[in-house]
Amino acid sequence: MASQKQFDPASGTRDFLAAEYERRERAFTTIRGVFGRYGFEPLQTPAFERLDVLTGKYGDEGDKLVFKILRRGEHEATGEADLALRYDLTVPLARAVAAYGSQLPSPYKRYAIAPVWRADRPGKGRFREFVQCDLDIVGSSSPLSDAEVVLALHDALDALGVPEFRFLVNSRRALAGLLEAYKVPADLGPGVLITLDKLDKLSPDEVVTELVAGRGLAAGVAQGLVDDLTSADAVERVRGELKGSETGQAGLAEIDRLLRLTQGTIPDERIAFTPNLVRGLDYYTGIIFEVVAPDTPGSIASGGRYDHLIATLGGKDAPACGGSLGIERILPLLDQPDERHYSQIDVAVTVMGDDLAAESFRLAAQIRRAGVRTGVYLGASGKFRTQMKWANDQGARFCVIYGAAERDAGEVIVRDMGSGEQIRVQHGQVAAELARRCAAPS
Amino acid sequence: MASQKQFDPASGTRDFLAAEYERRERAFTTIRGVFGRYGFEPLQTPAFERLDVLTGKYGDEGDKLVFKILRRGEHEATGEADLALRYDLTVPLARAVAAYGSQLPSPYKRYAIAPVWRADRPGKGRFREFVQCDLDIVGSSSPLSDAEVVLALHDALDALGVPEFRFLVNSRRALAGLLEAYKVPADLGPGVLITLDKLDKLSPDEVVTELVAGRGLAAGVAQGLVDDLTSADAVERVRGELKGSETGQAGLAEIDRLLRLTQGTIPDERIAFTPNLVRGLDYYTGIIFEVVAPDTPGSIASGGRYDHLIATLGGKDAPACGGSLGIERILPLLDQPDERHYSQIDVAVTVMGDDLAAESFRLAAQIRRAGVRTGVYLGASGKFRTQMKWANDQGARFCVIYGAAERDAGEVIVRDMGSGEQIRVQHGQVAAELARRCAAPS
Repeated sequence: MASQKQFDPASGTRDFLAAEYERRERAFTTIRGVFGRYGFEPLQTPAFERLDVLTGKYGDEGDKLVFKILRRGEHEATGEADLALRYDLTVPLARAVAAYGSQLPSPYKRYAIAPVWRADRPGKGRFREFVQCDLDIVGSSSPLSDAEVVLALHDALDALGVPEFRFLVNSRRALAGLLEAYKVPADLGPGVLITLDKLDKLSPDEVVTELVAGRGLAAGVAQGLVDDLTSADAVERVRGELKGSETGQAGLAEIDRLLRLTQGTIPDERIAFTPNLVRGLDYYTGIIFEVVAPDTPGSIASGGRYDHLIATLGGKDAPACGGSLGIERILPLLDQPDERHYSQIDVAVTVMGDDLAAESFRLAAQIRRAGVRTGVYLGASGKFRTQMKWANDQGARFCVIYGAAERDAGEVIVRDMGSGEQIRVQHGQVAAELARRCAAPS
Repeated sequence: MASQKQFDPASGTRDFLAAEYERRERAFTTIRGVFGRYGFEPLQTPAFERLDVLTGKYGDEGDKLVFKILRRGEHEATGEADLALRYDLTVPLARAVAAYGSQLPSPYKRYAIAPVWRADRPGKGRFREFVQCDLDIVGSSSPLSDAEVVLALHDALDALGVPEFRFLVNSRRALAGLLEAYKVPADLGPGVLITLDKLDKLSPDEVVTELVAGRGLAAGVAQGLVDDLTSADAVERVRGELKGSETGQAGLAEIDRLLRLTQGTIPDERIAFTPNLVRGLDYYTGIIFEVVAPDTPGSIASGGRYDHLIATLGGKDAPACGGSLGIERILPLLDQPDERHYSQIDVAVTVMGDDLAAESFRLAAQIRRAGVRTGVYLGASGKFRTQMKWANDQGARFCVIYGAAERDAGEVIVRDMGSGEQIRVQHGQVAAELARRCAAPS
């Protein structure tokens, strides 16, 4: 017997059958609704870009994960690529801002919910095709924009029904101030931050060891930094240290302003200054944040201000900030509605003979026009029992039975598939009657 | 100055900004609604498949148009491909049916609305990334299924608001009977049909010439066939001829049954037996149809029964029928709503000073919770005039003005951006008031 494997989707990709597809779409619709109510507008870019648009944008490691598309026709034999699947939604945003700048509102508030492709090693919860869910504000340097990004992400998580989550907030300026205050030599700064970012995964001692052995930091400085960042009153200690640095003070002010702007909209327990939050990507220039949820490793959302990234990616220099929902990680956190079999229809219409089939289609059309999902029996059997089994398998709540006797009486029989109760309804009334019944909870 | 070209999307692909994106999504939502009410369920497959899944499925010409993805890592240098972007939605359907057969309802009624990629030469209305919109019924050989596909496509075109369209219906069996009745040698049959399919593009004389010179048909037979097919009473003549062939009669019966089953649901003038309809693809086995619209070359929808295709594509042999909406051709036929600038928001909230900003965000949050799209001013200017211009540019219908005086009075000012009229509203009432006003037509 041939292995079923040959019919699996390509490694790291997934097929979504109806129930799972609908579940995902419901979440996307919720998010679009929240982002739309904030005045963010959608942008859709193609699945692939010219290779040169993507090359060199993601660092050496990232570049290796880009899916490249072979040239075509006579050029195929060269083995060269000229196109590549998008790796994220940020580079396409930068390209679009460069292409349509003057047509876009200013600031340009856009969201995108779309698949991206990365040739990562597939694993549990790690896919080669997965959906990213980004929102960004390009063209505003105002702290109000940082606040709006955070608020919109908060409301989306809330609307999705994520049971518990918390925003961790920091600022690149505060981090720079911290390095200053602890007298970390400037050239060691970036490496030190990368190691400090591991405080949520490694023990304090391991981090100190790495700071000293791996980053060349003096042992006393390393110990002092890690002690302060991991102490129970870390926030107070770091606030104190930052007062000694001008950059640090600017960073603190930025953080406090964000907390003040979101106060009363985001509950206090859901957002906090988190001095050891670093964020891996080095393009951030101001506020940075991550959202964490209990029992979920890593973050379920993240973002920050990245004032020069658009220029780096090929566009005009424009202040920008944004964030992203890790929707593939969020979906498993949401309540799974009790999905027995995915129900295709609410009403099943029988076909009790060749000469009655056209009228069954007309009846179904009337019921659908009343907004009710309605299926007609498409099998070959004229048997009542077989058709009832089909109606049941489809998850139909009601069945319309239309035979010769009903035709002669100008009626149809409506059967409640749950109770088995049957009533007779005037032919012309059946659509309205079923719309009314289907609107009631099952 | 650098050319803007460098920021264009890749050749043959398109960016969709908000207004166009929303227009397309509205159409897709309408179609999903109709298909869903028929009990078709969605299936989503990945953008790419293993290369061997696609290879050899589309003929030599089609195979050349497949976008192939280069192997990665150490294998990249081989210049070989192992994956390819999907070329249509039918091969992925066949793979999914083979993979999940036992989990799927029977018959399996599925729809898919998703992009496909073809390395065609880009041109007016011809893209390398475009959306296909398919629905299919796998596992039913019943003529009721053919009728249901036609009905669902009809209702979708109707719901989209396509102003005028017509279903042309034929059957592969009727075509086979036609060849029999006119005594076309069996080996010439396929070529003759391909030429007859051009009767909507070439003159009758040109078609006769091609039948004789290109296909080797006897001149008298060619002339007789073309005369009959192009005469004013073509349908009657062909019906007469088909009576002489058993296959022809079976084809006619199939067509008449479809017309009878759809009668009363599809208006008579929108569907007709069309003896010279051939459909290029040779996998059809029964009913075939196309939908044409005035002033639109080619068809805007098409489909038919293809009882052995699923097996050819690697699945189990299963009867199947389906159809496809040519959505990229249909969209330009739909009424373009008068889209001035795409409106991002209904309500604009001012920020009249740093100390009032958090309260402006809270006000906006309340208004959004009432379901109203609401934007907060994110610029740096505290000037009333600048913020009014912004509110206007955003297409806001109302503006909420909240300054120190309003704070002290526990009120906000609501300004109608159309009339300029301003009213004072109690702080706690503003969300309800704006929800009420925004629900009214503008």
